[in-house]
Amino acid sequence: MASDGFRPLDEKSLVEYIKATPSLSSKLGNPLDDLQIKEVGDGNLNFVYIVIGHSGSLVIKQALPYIRCIGESWPMTKERAYFEAITLKEHGHLCPAHVPEVYHFDRTMSLIGMRYLEPPHIILRKGLIAGIEYPLLAEHISEYMARTLFFTSLLHRTTTEHKRAVAEFCGNVELCRLTEQVVFSDPYKVSQYNHWTSPYLDGDAEAVREDNTLKLEVAELKSMFCERAQALIHGDLHTGSVMVTRDSTQVIDPEFAFYGPMGYDVGAFVGNLILAFFAQDGHADPQNDRKAYKDWILRTIDETWNLFHKKFTALWDKHKDGSGEAYLPEIYNNPQLQLLVKQKYMKDLFHDTLGFGAAKMIRRIVGVAHVEDFESITDAGYRADCERRALDFAKMLLKERRKFQGIADVISAIQKVHT
Amino acid sequence: MASDGFRPLDEKSLVEYIKATPSLSSKLGNPLDDLQIKEVGDGNLNFVYIVIGHSGSLVIKQALPYIRCIGESWPMTKERAYFEAITLKEHGHLCPAHVPEVYHFDRTMSLIGMRYLEPPHIILRKGLIAGIEYPLLAEHISEYMARTLFFTSLLHRTTTEHKRAVAEFCGNVELCRLTEQVVFSDPYKVSQYNHWTSPYLDGDAEAVREDNTLKLEVAELKSMFCERAQALIHGDLHTGSVMVTRDSTQVIDPEFAFYGPMGYDVGAFVGNLILAFFAQDGHADPQNDRKAYKDWILRTIDETWNLFHKKFTALWDKHKDGSGEAYLPEIYNNPQLQLLVKQKYMKDLFHDTLGFGAAKMIRRIVGVAHVEDFESITDAGYRADCERRALDFAKMLLKERRKFQGIADVISAIQKVHT
Repeated sequence: MASDGFRPLDEKSLVEYIKATPSLSSKLGNPLDDLQIKEVGDGNLNFVYIVIGHSGSLVIKQALPYIRCIGESWPMTKERAYFEAITLKEHGHLCPAHVPEVYHFDRTMSLIGMRYLEPPHIILRKGLIAGIEYPLLAEHISEYMARTLFFTSLLHRTTTEHKRAVAEFCGNVELCRLTEQVVFSDPYKVSQYNHWTSPYLDGDAEAVREDNTLKLEVAELKSMFCERAQALIHGDLHTGSVMVTRDSTQVIDPEFAFYGPMGYDVGAFVGNLILAFFAQDGHADPQNDRKAYKDWILRTIDETWNLFHKKFTALWDKHKDGSGEAYLPEIYNNPQLQLLVKQKYMKDLFHDTLGFGAAKMIRRIVGVAHVEDFESITDAGYRADCERRALDFAKMLLKERRKFQGIADVISAIQKVHT
Repeated sequence: MASDGFRPLDEKSLVEYIKATPSLSSKLGNPLDDLQIKEVGDGNLNFVYIVIGHSGSLVIKQALPYIRCIGESWPMTKERAYFEAITLKEHGHLCPAHVPEVYHFDRTMSLIGMRYLEPPHIILRKGLIAGIEYPLLAEHISEYMARTLFFTSLLHRTTTEHKRAVAEFCGNVELCRLTEQVVFSDPYKVSQYNHWTSPYLDGDAEAVREDNTLKLEVAELKSMFCERAQALIHGDLHTGSVMVTRDSTQVIDPEFAFYGPMGYDVGAFVGNLILAFFAQDGHADPQNDRKAYKDWILRTIDETWNLFHKKFTALWDKHKDGSGEAYLPEIYNNPQLQLLVKQKYMKDLFHDTLGFGAAKMIRRIVGVAHVEDFESITDAGYRADCERRALDFAKMLLKERRKFQGIADVISAIQKVHT
């Protein structure tokens, strides 16, 4: 046991821990002696146990003081579990339908006990690779993003509430640094962590490192990420942080949460859908050319933004006379000005979304952490073709984002890429 | 005495306090029994005592738990003295030539003991009203701004240092709220605190409140003020926060300091010089038409920005391989890209400067706190004419700021205003 009281659990010690913790044991039902326990952490950072008892189930997630997939050579504060837990609670309070309930948090042990998202829940990314349509996905994720981002911004908060919360989440600095490195820095320089489908993309990776215009724009996005405390963002809202069934959408893993730019969350989700789109050709087979599925992805991108826009501005309308200090009603109380203000805000947020989304795409192709959408394409040459189309699109999107008037323009641009 | 140990000092108890505090008494020389003490606080917020002893002098500044000029009806945390003290120390460390030395800080008493800026130091604003030229002013203030802003930004800081400091200064929220109210909100709505030269400017004040384009732009500046932690800014860098002689320039009163947009500081200074320019006609007399002095003010505005630009980018060049995490050398190490990056950064900072500077001008004409530059013009009709020219110029500057390519364009625009 470390001097701070932290000890990594294994399946055996986990049982003892659960037995000693009523907020966990009460969820499982007696007797507790034949719990089924399975370690399923497929992420990069943590141990995750599914625990199934006689009359209930739960998930235990424990953060370790390093990045699991790289090992103890890359230390990473286990305090991230604290920020994950308080974000799950806050986002869950704001949007209970799409955030799993937290039953227990132990800061010393960096351990969260939470709802087990039972089958047929799967990671959205795996569903996208399998070609499964989720008809409610755009509706649900837009609800999650609109509510969590609106209610934690100065559109709803007072300055006093905002600054207190910003200060607290400044403590999640190590995870912010990790993002800065792997999203905004490493892909644009030579780094031991970078990799790509070599040799096919060697020239493409080099072109990213030598593209001055791209690097100029990435600097602006990085500054916004580091400096702009706009809302409590999830911080890692890719398609691997969402679990789905046909009827349910659940956002998990907000350990990167902090007060940052809203467009980083919306962009992460949209960018990863675009990656899924460009990977589809690699998953086509004689029985399924994936053409219809690609159309569904594009419709989902379109609906995600449009529904987000609609819900976010509806929340704004509903709470325009509320406590938010950004646009005081005594100043912005005429309909024409309200419209102008919202148009400007949403236009800026749209362009931030495209910029961050594109940056997230690029880093998944030439940076340290890739996505299964492409990695599961076994023919390297074919995979590289898919990745190159995604990379070229992302570079264009990042550099030209301010020229896009709406999401329909983005969809058209994707469709114009020859696949 | 309040339960927290705070007690406001008067001239008598101040002597006892000094006697009991070696870091203060040692500056004055023995005997301590015939100290000369004078209360000189002409600001809005605090008590300020000049203390002169046998062989030395100092200033004691004590914050009270309300805004002095309005009284106990407007409470204001005395913790602001803490943020003032740590900012004086940090800015003083970065630019000792232009920040008075702090000898002593007592958090319980909200009391700062610091260097007395001896005669002929006067408040710059009073010098500008008197028509006195300060040939080194632009050189000095640009040095102060370049060094304090550069070294507290991510151009020099690591993310870890930055987030720690941002979190701490989130504690100065009450002063941030005060700025939000008096600079970005009250002038644009009906408020009991607003006043203006009535009836002359009644229509002008109303026009400010009904100018949708202006309010749209002010909202963007307010968001940046609330959300963007770019550097440790002074937060109130008008010409009343600077003491000068012909050879010396000293920046005082950083109690509004926090991590905010750099343009807010540069804009405050430039905007108040522009106010001083438009007030000059009100100070002209048969002996001095102030034409030459107006030219000096314009030259000083021009030099302030250009020297700031030069010094700030020189610091950037000098430290481009340093610890700053915004532009990593491995990514931004080619001369062409470095130039592009700096041009973009400085262009954005220039436009922020104009926007914030204009907002600071507007609030001094139709908001709660006016400036002596105009208030000392006794003929109300004539004062209103001067104020209206300044107000109209500020509205244009705020709305059109992105069209200005450089400070020379601003000077030309000022010169084109018929006075």
